[in-house]
Amino acid sequence: MARADGRAPDALRPVRITPNFLEQAEGSALIVFGRTRVLCAASIEERVPPFRAGKGGWLTAEYGMLPRATNTRSAREAVTGKQGGRTVEIQRLIGRSLRAVVDLAAFGERTLTLDCDVIQADGGTRTASITGAFVAAVLAFRSLPASSFVAWPLREAVAAVSVGIIDGTPMLDLPYEEDSRAEVDFNVVMTSSGRFVELQGTAEGEPFGRAAANQLIDLAEGGIRRLFALQLEALGGSYGPM
Amino acid sequence: MARADGRAPDALRPVRITPNFLEQAEGSALIVFGRTRVLCAASIEERVPPFRAGKGGWLTAEYGMLPRATNTRSAREAVTGKQGGRTVEIQRLIGRSLRAVVDLAAFGERTLTLDCDVIQADGGTRTASITGAFVAAVLAFRSLPASSFVAWPLREAVAAVSVGIIDGTPMLDLPYEEDSRAEVDFNVVMTSSGRFVELQGTAEGEPFGRAAANQLIDLAEGGIRRLFALQLEALGGSYGPM
Amino acid sequence: MARADGRAPDALRPVRITPNFLEQAEGSALIVFGRTRVLCAASIEERVPPFRAGKGGWLTAEYGMLPRATNTRSAREAVTGKQGGRTVEIQRLIGRSLRAVVDLAAFGERTLTLDCDVIQADGGTRTASITGAFVAAVLAFRSLPASSFVAWPLREAVAAVSVGIIDGTPMLDLPYEEDSRAEVDFNVVMTSSGRFVELQGTAEGEPFGRAAANQLIDLAEGGIRRLFALQLEALGGSYGPM
Amino acid sequence: MARADGRAPDALRPVRITPNFLEQAEGSALIVFGRTRVLCAASIEERVPPFRAGKGGWLTAEYGMLPRATNTRSAREAVTGKQGGRTVEIQRLIGRSLRAVVDLAAFGERTLTLDCDVIQADGGTRTASITGAFVAAVLAFRSLPASSFVAWPLREAVAAVSVGIIDGTPMLDLPYEEDSRAEVDFNVVMTSSGRFVELQGTAEGEPFGRAAANQLIDLAEGGIRRLFALQLEALGGSYGPM
Amino acid sequence: MARADGRAPDALRPVRITPNFLEQAEGSALIVFGRTRVLCAASIEERVPPFRAGKGGWLTAEYGMLPRATNTRSAREAVTGKQGGRTVEIQRLIGRSLRAVVDLAAFGERTLTLDCDVIQADGGTRTASITGAFVAAVLAFRSLPASSFVAWPLREAVAAVSVGIIDGTPMLDLPYEEDSRAEVDFNVVMTSSGRFVELQGTAEGEPFGRAAANQLIDLAEGGIRRLFALQLEALGGSYGPM
Amino acid sequence: MARADGRAPDALRPVRITPNFLEQAEGSALIVFGRTRVLCAASIEERVPPFRAGKGGWLTAEYGMLPRATNTRSAREAVTGKQGGRTVEIQRLIGRSLRAVVDLAAFGERTLTLDCDVIQADGGTRTASITGAFVAAVLAFRSLPASSFVAWPLREAVAAVSVGIIDGTPMLDLPYEEDSRAEVDFNVVMTSSGRFVELQGTAEGEPFGRAAANQLIDLAEGGIRRLFALQLEALGGSYGPM
Repeated sequence: MARADGRAPDALRPVRITPNFLEQAEGSALIVFGRTRVLCAASIEERVPPFRAGKGGWLTAEYGMLPRATNTRSAREAVTGKQGGRTVEIQRLIGRSLRAVVDLAAFGERTLTLDCDVIQADGGTRTASITGAFVAAVLAFRSLPASSFVAWPLREAVAAVSVGIIDGTPMLDLPYEEDSRAEVDFNVVMTSSGRFVELQGTAEGEPFGRAAANQLIDLAEGGIRRLFALQLEALGGSYGPM
Repeated sequence: MARADGRAPDALRPVRITPNFLEQAEGSALIVFGRTRVLCAASIEERVPPFRAGKGGWLTAEYGMLPRATNTRSAREAVTGKQGGRTVEIQRLIGRSLRAVVDLAAFGERTLTLDCDVIQADGGTRTASITGAFVAAVLAFRSLPASSFVAWPLREAVAAVSVGIIDGTPMLDLPYEEDSRAEVDFNVVMTSSGRFVELQGTAEGEPFGRAAANQLIDLAEGGIRRLFALQLEALGGSYGPM
Repeated sequence: MARADGRAPDALRPVRITPNFLEQAEGSALIVFGRTRVLCAASIEERVPPFRAGKGGWLTAEYGMLPRATNTRSAREAVTGKQGGRTVEIQRLIGRSLRAVVDLAAFGERTLTLDCDVIQADGGTRTASITGAFVAAVLAFRSLPASSFVAWPLREAVAAVSVGIIDGTPMLDLPYEEDSRAEVDFNVVMTSSGRFVELQGTAEGEPFGRAAANQLIDLAEGGIRRLFALQLEALGGSYGPM
Repeated sequence: MARADGRAPDALRPVRITPNFLEQAEGSALIVFGRTRVLCAASIEERVPPFRAGKGGWLTAEYGMLPRATNTRSAREAVTGKQGGRTVEIQRLIGRSLRAVVDLAAFGERTLTLDCDVIQADGGTRTASITGAFVAAVLAFRSLPASSFVAWPLREAVAAVSVGIIDGTPMLDLPYEEDSRAEVDFNVVMTSSGRFVELQGTAEGEPFGRAAANQLIDLAEGGIRRLFALQLEALGGSYGPM
Repeated sequence: MARADGRAPDALRPVRITPNFLEQAEGSALIVFGRTRVLCAASIEERVPPFRAGKGGWLTAEYGMLPRATNTRSAREAVTGKQGGRTVEIQRLIGRSLRAVVDLAAFGERTLTLDCDVIQADGGTRTASITGAFVAAVLAFRSLPASSFVAWPLREAVAAVSVGIIDGTPMLDLPYEEDSRAEVDFNVVMTSSGRFVELQGTAEGEPFGRAAANQLIDLAEGGIRRLFALQLEALGGSYGPM
Repeated sequence: MARADGRAPDALRPVRITPNFLEQAEGSALIVFGRTRVLCAASIEERVPPFRAGKGGWLTAEYGMLPRATNTRSAREAVTGKQGGRTVEIQRLIGRSLRAVVDLAAFGERTLTLDCDVIQADGGTRTASITGAFVAAVLAFRSLPASSFVAWPLREAVAAVSVGIIDGTPMLDLPYEEDSRAEVDFNVVMTSSGRFVELQGTAEGEPFGRAAANQLIDLAEGGIRRLFALQLEALGGSYGPM
């Protein structure tokens, strides 16, 4: 079955990561998956929230979407007065994913905030956010002298991709048009050691069986391995201090 | 490794489902998993939200926790003025899970609202909510004459359970104390045909491999099959009209 | 004039108080008046709000109603984003009523929070809340060693009931159907020494004269005396430490 | 026992009612009790809220206090983002009191909104609000041709006063300094036929007996009768159309 | 071209300033411009917000409008739950205008809050607020012994007026009816040394040229000079300590 | 006096306008002034708000700043739950500025929403927003067939710039560092016919005289004329339909 953009079922959209997109943040990256563009900014503050006092550092994430990121304008959350359910769900996922690879004890009593703001949305914004936030986080760590840390505060890399079944065919990296037609939809968050941080599979129509789940996770693994290569390239070939 | 309550790793806590716990709701059930107690109420209204007009019925869920459901009192969300991120995430999951087995077209232009309120919390409140909400939903459908529907609005049953790995051992149905120590934590939502609606696995510490994921899903499947039996018993042996 | 449930005008509905309904709260009681069910939880925290620092303890109450406690579903206050006027009015009344019998100086620099959550509503939820909250409070005091207090922090008992005039007849303990037809409606909060903490009389239709007020207060007194007996029974025969 | 301002226990503070204080409202009155000043505005709109459609008119009240009405500045409710519990309780009382004497069927499908805003507060703001709001309401009715109504939409007059026991002596119309020392505090809302709309008695310290309640209500009756005379004078000698 | 009230284009409406309108505030003034009436209250608190600690005093302003200040009732901001955009804009302008003439270092570590509440609105409420708030501020400074300050905390006076072009004619001090027809609208805030704190000109219809701007500013200057005289009179002939 | 970036006092920072920056909006432009970058999106909807029904079209603007647009991270307004005072003030200014040049009657019963989101902030974000929003608006008009309009809905162009006095020298287009040191600060919004839509001058320290105001407005005029040239270039040489 052909995809609208002619891609093979197991191909990613063209992915581009621009490190240091912002001039004032400790770390930042613009990540582009086809028409999806997410700006990830990493901010370091020399304090932790009260519940973390004396327990090492903290890492949190926030997610937002510009009102006209989407095909038709959606309401600005600052105007409606609260973050929607989808926003909350996504920013919690980004935070958990990044905490899985950051060593908060080594980071020291600091807070790393990852702001993922969607400039343009065409599917896969949550997985692009995780993948880009990792690059921003590494750049933010590099903004401090390596001697600021007990040890380099990263255990390994993390990246994520969406996969789904469309008309019975498992496909990698769904744009909005495919996502809205998918029967099953998985978001897979994996570390560079090949282990999972999050597996989230949802049946949009019919429930799915174990075989389909395994097939989708295989497909996601392949895509995420390519994302690790792109992250590494954006970071100059290493996850460590420069 | 022994569990605090002496259960085998693959045993559920004592589960009790009391149908028709409320006298005024269209359908209701109190579901108890050990010390966890969730009151599920199903309300039918003869109208749909604007975005569903002319498209069949609608089903939505809300989740709440009484302030003193927990071991130490937590703030009342009506006082803080908004639902927390965890609440929003859970109620969206409940809604998706139930929509997977309800035939909204057959239901007709009505709204089914499932309120899952935690009276006492000791782990597994979201999976207990899904399992109990299904019973409440069936009872609510039965509150209308079967002739109100084009067809009986249920495709199959749905239930859910949590599983996790604690000190290396996969365990079924985690109470709070185990949940807070688990290395990996899965919430599995399955239908009575043995297929999945949601698979949500999270590494709380170390990431997890594919083998562990499969082992946990197997364990969950066993638990959920026992929950289907308990639902059926609470419903008088059938998911259909009485 | 006959009442729908066949009660005499001066009879209470069947009242049942289940002490220690919750396993994790310092004190709790489920109180049932006919179809009305209120869960009262008492929580003790070892701190006071800033405005009470150095002035002895504090006692506050919160009130809520589950969305489907009522005959038709009402909106969840956590979703609408604020407590309604009726909720605020009721929780202030509960707090004042309990503060009238608790000796905050003897209680020490602690806060007692009384959460009254209506599981099912059929009239009289505010007076049931006061009556049940007293039981929960005593149980919470008993959860601490008696030596924690300068003196036992209770002066006497408090209970409450609603009375009203329906078709010209004064009646005790109104269910919703009667309450909505009452011409005059009194909530009477009395202590075990036979004195009042609150008298709140409202004309729903025609204003009322002094004679009617006195007749209603007499009727309420009789009902509250029976509630004192039920509280005492639930508490094992004493308001003091066990 | 002498009062700070030399008044007899059964004397009102100097009361002054200025009708038509505002030039743009349908009706208005500034009411002054000693240092307490409340501006009451009555607005008529030619529509009713949805729940009153086809059921005659509606009457509602709102209450507010300017931030520096009090001895030390209090926060502006528009800034804190919600009306406090005391505000809500008071405006509900004002609304109920006025609805008791207004004939909503005769008023027609219109809404009368009574805004009571405290310019300066020194005790008794809620009872002054009720007393002044009645004057504003009559003036608002007069702003329409009498032929607009099926019948004159007033059944009788309503006024209110606070009474309390201070150092054992019942006293009428308490300023803030007395109110904060009172052992018992009653707000009495009475109609010109000598019947009650609301009786609200609260023990601030010791509970109170029936004799004290009756003594306070007697005292209030005397004060309210004088307020009826002052209302009548402000209205030019009649409650009817001019 | 004749104005509705017969004024010359360069005439102010009748202006009246009543100092010490409130009995409990540190300083206050009621300022009346025709039908516009604004109550300005100045409160001194012996603390500063955290961001001013160790940097001298602070001055802030809040603005509000009673719901029935206007010709038709507008919603109460405490009920809608937030201050509207216009309110926020105006209170920021009042704060900036007063900070321009108050010497915060000389004031000491205190906060001066200026509450400007519109009792009746007929155009020019923001400029009346600034003019009246200055009088309230001076009275508040006088409520403290002059020795409380390093130096008298005022540099000079400030006042403000609106001007606009109506049917091609520049006019001073616009009531609502003129303001809503104005082609250009300027708010001018000037100090007693004849210099500007704020110039805000807005084209309501056609953009305006430099000549018109200069003409309007000239007109405003004349009006503001008269306001300085009225302020001085209300303050007993001096801006200094009494 | 030298500027940090070596510019002459009357020079703009390097300005770059990228039209059609977004692929899904009806119109869009990224506008860059030195380090300041604002993304302007124009959305057309085929409906108007109720208060505009039957009166032609409507145009409104919203403004936001990404949390890490600034030098240190600021709180996300969607999280704090409301737009701050500065945000509200700015978006009202953008809306007024654009409405001055758009012919709403010719536009037809449609709404044009201009979202100005600051990606990176270094002073002048409100004036950049106005200048960029004009470009986005023209592109949005061009997204519809010219025949959709009664007439081309633009009267002329609008652009804006900030000017200020620093150490006594008037300077054009202030970056944050200069803006925070400026004694006087003007935002000037001008149309291509050389007339003003808004003049907003604020004394940050000492008040300013008429001569300084005129000097600053002259300086702004020069800068704005260059912005008109850049807008025209971005639009392919015309403000009309393509």
